[in-house]
Amino acid sequence: MASAPDTTSIPGYTIFREGDCDSVAAHAMTPQGPPHPLDQLSIHEVPETAKLVRAYCNPKTVKFNCITLREPPKAEYAAFKAGNIPAPDRKAFTIVIIRETEQVAEVIVNLSKNKVESYKEIHNAMPTLTLEDLDVMERICLRDPRVIRACNEVGITDMSKVFVDAWAIGIDERWGFDRRLQQGLVYYRSSDFDNQYAHPLDFSVVADTEKEEVLSVDIRLVNGERTGVPLQEHNYLPEFISDKYNHDRLKPIDITQPQGVSFKVRGNELQWANYKMHIGFNYREGIVISDVRSHDMYEDRERTLFNRISVVEMVVPYGCPEKPHHKKHAFDVGEYGTGLMTNSLKLGCDCKGAIHYMDGVMSTGSGEAAVIKNAICIHEEDNGLLYKHTDYRDGTVISARDRKLIISQIITAANYEYGFYHTFTLDGTYKLEMKLTGMLNTYCMHPTETAAPWGTQVAPEVTAHNHQHIFSLRVDPEIDGTNNTVVQSDAVSAEANVGSPENPYGNAFLSKKTPLRTSLEGAADYCYETQRSWDIINPNRVNEVSKKPVGYKILNNNCPPLLAKPGSTVYNRAAFARKPLWVTPYKDYELFPAGDYVCQSTGEEDHPFNSTILDWAKRNEPIENADLVCYIQFGLTHFPRTEDFPIMPAEPVSVMLRASNFHQKNPGLWVPPSAVCVDTMSKNAFPSAASMSCCASNNPSRL
Amino acid sequence: MASAPDTTSIPGYTIFREGDCDSVAAHAMTPQGPPHPLDQLSIHEVPETAKLVRAYCNPKTVKFNCITLREPPKAEYAAFKAGNIPAPDRKAFTIVIIRETEQVAEVIVNLSKNKVESYKEIHNAMPTLTLEDLDVMERICLRDPRVIRACNEVGITDMSKVFVDAWAIGIDERWGFDRRLQQGLVYYRSSDFDNQYAHPLDFSVVADTEKEEVLSVDIRLVNGERTGVPLQEHNYLPEFISDKYNHDRLKPIDITQPQGVSFKVRGNELQWANYKMHIGFNYREGIVISDVRSHDMYEDRERTLFNRISVVEMVVPYGCPEKPHHKKHAFDVGEYGTGLMTNSLKLGCDCKGAIHYMDGVMSTGSGEAAVIKNAICIHEEDNGLLYKHTDYRDGTVISARDRKLIISQIITAANYEYGFYHTFTLDGTYKLEMKLTGMLNTYCMHPTETAAPWGTQVAPEVTAHNHQHIFSLRVDPEIDGTNNTVVQSDAVSAEANVGSPENPYGNAFLSKKTPLRTSLEGAADYCYETQRSWDIINPNRVNEVSKKPVGYKILNNNCPPLLAKPGSTVYNRAAFARKPLWVTPYKDYELFPAGDYVCQSTGEEDHPFNSTILDWAKRNEPIENADLVCYIQFGLTHFPRTEDFPIMPAEPVSVMLRASNFHQKNPGLWVPPSAVCVDTMSKNAFPSAASMSCCASNNPSRL
Repeated sequence: MASAPDTTSIPGYTIFREGDCDSVAAHAMTPQGPPHPLDQLSIHEVPETAKLVRAYCNPKTVKFNCITLREPPKAEYAAFKAGNIPAPDRKAFTIVIIRETEQVAEVIVNLSKNKVESYKEIHNAMPTLTLEDLDVMERICLRDPRVIRACNEVGITDMSKVFVDAWAIGIDERWGFDRRLQQGLVYYRSSDFDNQYAHPLDFSVVADTEKEEVLSVDIRLVNGERTGVPLQEHNYLPEFISDKYNHDRLKPIDITQPQGVSFKVRGNELQWANYKMHIGFNYREGIVISDVRSHDMYEDRERTLFNRISVVEMVVPYGCPEKPHHKKHAFDVGEYGTGLMTNSLKLGCDCKGAIHYMDGVMSTGSGEAAVIKNAICIHEEDNGLLYKHTDYRDGTVISARDRKLIISQIITAANYEYGFYHTFTLDGTYKLEMKLTGMLNTYCMHPTETAAPWGTQVAPEVTAHNHQHIFSLRVDPEIDGTNNTVVQSDAVSAEANVGSPENPYGNAFLSKKTPLRTSLEGAADYCYETQRSWDIINPNRVNEVSKKPVGYKILNNNCPPLLAKPGSTVYNRAAFARKPLWVTPYKDYELFPAGDYVCQSTGEEDHPFNSTILDWAKRNEPIENADLVCYIQFGLTHFPRTEDFPIMPAEPVSVMLRASNFHQKNPGLWVPPSAVCVDTMSKNAFPSAASMSCCASNNPSRL
Repeated sequence: MASAPDTTSIPGYTIFREGDCDSVAAHAMTPQGPPHPLDQLSIHEVPETAKLVRAYCNPKTVKFNCITLREPPKAEYAAFKAGNIPAPDRKAFTIVIIRETEQVAEVIVNLSKNKVESYKEIHNAMPTLTLEDLDVMERICLRDPRVIRACNEVGITDMSKVFVDAWAIGIDERWGFDRRLQQGLVYYRSSDFDNQYAHPLDFSVVADTEKEEVLSVDIRLVNGERTGVPLQEHNYLPEFISDKYNHDRLKPIDITQPQGVSFKVRGNELQWANYKMHIGFNYREGIVISDVRSHDMYEDRERTLFNRISVVEMVVPYGCPEKPHHKKHAFDVGEYGTGLMTNSLKLGCDCKGAIHYMDGVMSTGSGEAAVIKNAICIHEEDNGLLYKHTDYRDGTVISARDRKLIISQIITAANYEYGFYHTFTLDGTYKLEMKLTGMLNTYCMHPTETAAPWGTQVAPEVTAHNHQHIFSLRVDPEIDGTNNTVVQSDAVSAEANVGSPENPYGNAFLSKKTPLRTSLEGAADYCYETQRSWDIINPNRVNEVSKKPVGYKILNNNCPPLLAKPGSTVYNRAAFARKPLWVTPYKDYELFPAGDYVCQSTGEEDHPFNSTILDWAKRNEPIENADLVCYIQFGLTHFPRTEDFPIMPAEPVSVMLRASNFHQKNPGLWVPPSAVCVDTMSKNAFPSAASMSCCASNNPSRL
């Protein structure tokens, strides 16, 4: 019955065939008892879904593009949470591609009722490229005579040393939606484990990967000439550079948690400090954090913060106008799936201390469960001072330490890696920190060329092009209740002139508040001059102390303006990246601001199967005192440096939501101080200090 | 001979009288051998200086405002470093106030030659307020009949429960430079250790603290009425809130370094990873980091980075236009001295792991050495991923961990605390992170008043006013040599239209480079739209790989525009805060952008004894390919939240300088990877991996 799981077909995945025993599968995905409504599909539910869909489609045969949880509608989940209804039916959402016709369809399966509930054909839209889809590219390229000839012409005859990174194509006007396209970027490796990004070749390949046909080999000629292969090696693996290691220079830093972690996990529900939340995962968004609540120590009640948090899109437009580089603008969430590209994590590689891992359950094209072991890392870190104050009169010192809860995943998108660190701290802050590392996308240079202005020469004959990374964080807020309003806050000088009775010394300034009333107003720009931020408030709940509505503040000064021009391909396709903030009314299953189908999308408005944030904003619906959703864009513009080669030092960028008049007082006062000191010279010794850990303790590591 | 050091007269200080034995003093300030030319004055040199000055001034008697190292001129230090001259003479710089006449003078003492070298009278300028100066305020206020009456009128009769925070006055047009002024902000404490900031009183006091005379008690009447004392208690010390502590919720995180720290300290010279530097300290700037160099693994040579780094000014303008709040705009560096206000640090309070402390040596008004034990904390922290890459084809994973070296101090400025964290990382980055914590400045509210728009009601009848914090980081760069140029970098779309041959798809963008040629051009604005940054380059050194000049990039998108209006008091006094960047040619002893004498300054231009950054910029001298200095402003605008009371959660803000085409490659490749993994299913096992720590190791904490 229990055949050994097949782990070879997709690197990093453990594949479960129908009938496989789940004993080898991870703990977290098969909790005791019935699943939580937001739990990922189990390794049983995935093939069960496939079976039902296959039977439904019979005699047509299908390729599964995805099999994932169909989350219950928000109202239904709320009713369940309130105890008004039993658990919603377990449902699966799947996108299938009918073999032969290549017709795309969305199928919803009710697993509780064992039936297909809906089947909807999708036209003029291409689903995410799975790892299996991407694998096709290299396979068909390497045996294509035109590719082989293109290699031979520059002196490469051993095709086992040629590698093709498969990329979504963005757009190629030579073929329309009749073809499911990919582009292949071609590299050479002089030996096993050699860094291929040091040897980019001068041509790219376009293929129909559904039909497995190479359509074009596009060779870029410079003054009619081929560019030779940059052969100099630039490696980073120990095989090549271990003689450069200095093993003595850095002494170990040991981080241990002898009593274990401070969070409790029950299935996929997590409790830590004041917080409670549910951790989900899917092929496209990767980590999904739902139902985030905070226990308020002053009001002694549980208060809702966020209904759902996830990274729903990103785009990496490159800035070199020359063909074929205009086609490089990866949408890693929509085109490839953040979940699908997730690394299996191992302690010591990625995080330190006591780690709790959760697995990611996805599917293969043939409908089996594909598990990424340790896809999600949950751990804590010390976060330095939570607060400190010294009373200079009596020398009394108090300080407490902050703590982070970090829920993270790392993805590999061919050359690049992205670390996603969803972070909660004791002061009532949620922060998403991204860390960008891995390999630059590189290209070869003809001897007559210079890298500037479109790139930086990171090695002789090798350029790395200018690019941007813009992420879209979707936050469905639930600030102390469902109905919220986003209020724009601008720090402005008072209008009254210097010397006037209202502003005699000219120092007056205030926070100007402008509620965003409709989804068109919700498409907001950043303003550096006013240090703009946005308060997500609940207008129905007033903070008793401040007499202001309770709120959370969006702090985001890290949204680079999209540098692709209005009217450009990227500008159209990545409309979400035009604004640092979009606010729309909540609608079930409206999640992806660049569309549900990003591959080969044009950004066309009013697409019947592929609406985008532009369409949602245009509806111009009210968002005041409403169930609303925020799309928060942030990222950076990267002009490559030599320091980024041959492997990039991690570069962080983050965005933050911070309690702002949400609590009546500092929400971290339940945290025992790490130290309370009394100046022994002081006449007023602090009476209870003796019972506390003192700064001078001999056991500082426990403080 | 060796009388016990007197530790009571200034809290936190250990005072050494002339003739005291130094055995009780700290290690770091008295290294073996002759001092490094940039070492702080020793506990012997301070009283030695005082003795020479007293003798010189005799029969006039003096109060010492400061006694600090007179650093050698840059050229002299460079000649010494190059081995061309012996160690420069040890010199002290002191500001004295002649008792009776209150004449201020700057005196330079040559300690090597045992003589006063220069004596210069200073007019129309007031030196820093020392802790001793500040102590006067409370003492004289509490016995003043007008103060007592003002308290009695609101029902306070026990003057032992009244406390006066002494503040620099900023400006008070009722008295000029004839008086050395302070303002006193008055609070009530209902019991020992009660939080006084919960009970602000409605009046402030102005006093001449040199003559010890209260000049005015300014009571703010609202509709002709006094405001009562807010009596509700809002405490944060365990005495009051320990019943709120949850001791079980957070399990300990132990951070240990069983082999000790990775840095070497010799006297005040430090070596860590690739870096070498000197750590200094003085009463005004606190930490001074000098002579920062990096060993380049590719060129196998030591390369200079920064000649000197320190925080040379800050301003905290408050935004409430009503008297007396217009006088609240603290310059904590210039008016109070960051060194003077420094906390004595203890392990567990402030940092974790293996800590190396250095002491701070300053002086008392009578010329004794005043030592703050453990003023400077030097420690390391794990910094997460340095880099990671997974080869999706063969499953090979490599990752290395980054490390921080943090040189920090924490100051208490009456209510507020500021943590200064000078941080170096392995990727070639220097970052200054500030953490703001402590207590909000509060004020009482009359029942007819609301806190808005000038503040937030953080407790019933208590408002905390809007304010900004703007810091000035002075960096004297030495990017691979003395002569540097600052080049402004703007990310801009290409000019060519979408669809034109030069930009067919509209995606082209580049970094537009504009060298700042003169100190007027060096007064630069930030531009969010172009994600502006500034490269400090050495135009005389070309990176062999990129063919661009070697450089370090200033990354600063955290400079809030100054909200006090042009023409306002703050705008004039804090001219440095008008721009995120000023670049001026280097001049010996030109350090403080708001002037050497900030107390009661007006910001007057061309002041003969108190020039400011405005004067330096106006000289409009060339700064291209020159020995130049950067003043980098950053900070935040703070609209208080209820969460900031009764003690503020630490809020970080930072600025960064990052290697940018400085190294030929990633400068962290000498760091042994923390993990190299091979997919065991892969046919191409990675040959040397067996000798490395693998991800699956059972000893993860050592990885």
